[in-house]
Amino acid sequence: MGNRWNTGRTEAFSDGVLAIAITLLVLDLNVPADEFDELWRGILAEWPAYLAYASSFLTIGGIWLRHHGIFSRLAYVDRKLMSLNLLLLMAVSFLPFPTRLVAEAIQNEDAERTAVIFYGTSLLAISVLIGALWAAAARDRDLLRPGIEQAEIDAILIETTPSIGFYVVATIVAIVVPHVAAVGYLLIAIFVVLRADGDQPEAAQPT
Amino acid sequence: MGNRWNTGRTEAFSDGVLAIAITLLVLDLNVPADEFDELWRGILAEWPAYLAYASSFLTIGGIWLRHHGIFSRLAYVDRKLMSLNLLLLMAVSFLPFPTRLVAEAIQNEDAERTAVIFYGTSLLAISVLIGALWAAAARDRDLLRPGIEQAEIDAILIETTPSIGFYVVATIVAIVVPHVAAVGYLLIAIFVVLRADGDQPEAAQPT
Amino acid sequence: MGNRWNTGRTEAFSDGVLAIAITLLVLDLNVPADEFDELWRGILAEWPAYLAYASSFLTIGGIWLRHHGIFSRLAYVDRKLMSLNLLLLMAVSFLPFPTRLVAEAIQNEDAERTAVIFYGTSLLAISVLIGALWAAAARDRDLLRPGIEQAEIDAILIETTPSIGFYVVATIVAIVVPHVAAVGYLLIAIFVVLRADGDQPEAAQPT
Amino acid sequence: MGNRWNTGRTEAFSDGVLAIAITLLVLDLNVPADEFDELWRGILAEWPAYLAYASSFLTIGGIWLRHHGIFSRLAYVDRKLMSLNLLLLMAVSFLPFPTRLVAEAIQNEDAERTAVIFYGTSLLAISVLIGALWAAAARDRDLLRPGIEQAEIDAILIETTPSIGFYVVATIVAIVVPHVAAVGYLLIAIFVVLRADGDQPEAAQPT
Repeated sequence: MGNRWNTGRTEAFSDGVLAIAITLLVLDLNVPADEFDELWRGILAEWPAYLAYASSFLTIGGIWLRHHGIFSRLAYVDRKLMSLNLLLLMAVSFLPFPTRLVAEAIQNEDAERTAVIFYGTSLLAISVLIGALWAAAARDRDLLRPGIEQAEIDAILIETTPSIGFYVVATIVAIVVPHVAAVGYLLIAIFVVLRADGDQPEAAQPT
Repeated sequence: MGNRWNTGRTEAFSDGVLAIAITLLVLDLNVPADEFDELWRGILAEWPAYLAYASSFLTIGGIWLRHHGIFSRLAYVDRKLMSLNLLLLMAVSFLPFPTRLVAEAIQNEDAERTAVIFYGTSLLAISVLIGALWAAAARDRDLLRPGIEQAEIDAILIETTPSIGFYVVATIVAIVVPHVAAVGYLLIAIFVVLRADGDQPEAAQPT
Repeated sequence: MGNRWNTGRTEAFSDGVLAIAITLLVLDLNVPADEFDELWRGILAEWPAYLAYASSFLTIGGIWLRHHGIFSRLAYVDRKLMSLNLLLLMAVSFLPFPTRLVAEAIQNEDAERTAVIFYGTSLLAISVLIGALWAAAARDRDLLRPGIEQAEIDAILIETTPSIGFYVVATIVAIVVPHVAAVGYLLIAIFVVLRADGDQPEAAQPT
Repeated sequence: MGNRWNTGRTEAFSDGVLAIAITLLVLDLNVPADEFDELWRGILAEWPAYLAYASSFLTIGGIWLRHHGIFSRLAYVDRKLMSLNLLLLMAVSFLPFPTRLVAEAIQNEDAERTAVIFYGTSLLAISVLIGALWAAAARDRDLLRPGIEQAEIDAILIETTPSIGFYVVATIVAIVVPHVAAVGYLLIAIFVVLRADGDQPEAAQPT
């Protein structure tokens, strides 16, 4: 009996859950049958659903990149990391639900604000959980692969903090102007994807 | 021709099925369109669906951890294990159905008791099947990796028994007070996740 | 450029498709809201859906076992095998559709016969395709791993033929007595799972 | 910190997304309950849905083959490739939506043209993105595995160009005769699958 795990199967299971959550998002895209007489108009009228789709897709893509970045530095997963990872997967798997609410509500003034705040809070929870996952790993060098430098550990921690801040700001903006916040979530997701750090040094191979 | 298999592809297939079943649970979360005028109230009114979601998510997460624990000790899968594993996957894949019934029924007094008992019975079946999987493996040392000690085999068997007991108790409670049982299933799932045993000894690496 | 592939990623992709198809089956289980007043009756009334679920689940499980058996003997996949494998995956991915029809139609006398014949024809197509996959591999020894004996190749071919026969018989039975055929498909699936051959010889390790 | 990744986990994640997108297509096949009285007619009336299913299934299958072909030549993924790959996966995951529109609209004259053009544009976008993925990889030899020849790089580029052309032509045809274009998309998909190039040379093993 032991109290920790190799990372292999945890990574494979997490990849599976993230890949499925990202692909299920499409199930909420559809054009109501009564708009088939003017289908272009019906397709265009779904723009909030496309915005929510792109935003959630890229957010989960960014989480996958950061998850990848964390696990490539881990040698073992202990019970605390395992529990945090399950919570993170639960939060990501939950995301299609608020995504659907945003898509359905964004043109109903009453519901729009609520849906965008609920969506932003879910993104914030995901962001906090992935930050907590790395913070827990960073605190216990036994879990890290040998040869990981303190500077690298700190850099990953520092990278996490701004996205939590962005989500807090965007969610406050959502209270006043939900449309702006909805676009903000997409921009944060694009930003996270573009600045994700790789697991290989720039000069792994002499060129 | 042979009558047993390497564990690799069976593990990969099982991970896939468990990852998909856990992620499909979100498809049953939604707020009816007629509650969009007061969306916060509509979101909150779905609490039984969230309880069922968290409960089933963590139950499947716990099953995955125990499945991982069992397969990390196996060298081969024989026909009996393969059949038991398929039955286990069938029972886990079935779980989104009773989960949905609990979510839909918990506020209808007539249906609530039935749904919670049906859900609990499904959890009990899953728990019995994973117990049977390990019991079958433990009986045939040819299937285990070399170097697994009898004490470890027994410890895993002993670990399995209480959750079967818990599910029996919670399902009897469900007959009288379904709400309490519904919370009980969540607590059992959390308990199973928190005490899952790893596949690596505590001192795998000198520190 | 080449005209064949290593088997690794094809196996992983096929496992993914089979795992998803097997898990999506649960989405067609549900109890109509108007039966919640007598939920036990409503749950029991869904028995054709459970029969179809178990039958399709075990059929896909059996296909996975046979797919595993075939690929464990392959060293390479050529264009013909790749195309046959894609057709096989397309047929298996299609199966949730006739499964749903059987579940919905089995208590409507007009539709029952049609649905069961359509379902049986789908199973027959899957069975023919997996037979064709192995027949194509067996004809080209360059694709097989070294050391596979002719007797083993023939045994796998012979194993395939009866299930094609069973599906033909069951589908003819379906024309006369659909209920009997529906149970027959389940029995064939159980039979295929129970007699699947492993990829490891009985005495791989001295014991 | 680095700015590139090993290909392993990116391939696994991409395979997962492609396998799920290809399997979700079946969820849009169904026969309306009011056609159960004449179920054969109801099943046959769904032919546009089967055409769209086969077309999208084989298109995603072809994308998977070409993705496989590209990644088997890559040693590393840099930020640009990672972003392009995420965009490609987003476009493929989106495909079940226009597929469903084609299936639903093809018998409604008003909607048919629009749906087929929208579907074709999605296929075109996917084709451009996978072309861009390889073009970006081909430009930076540091990312390629050692020993890839310039002739091979060019051959893959050349292979990509015609399918972009085919999609442009088919989509122009769709403006005039949508039915013909719908069949055209299926033919392009079959063509791409049949001429996919393997990752192993013909004479990898002396025979």
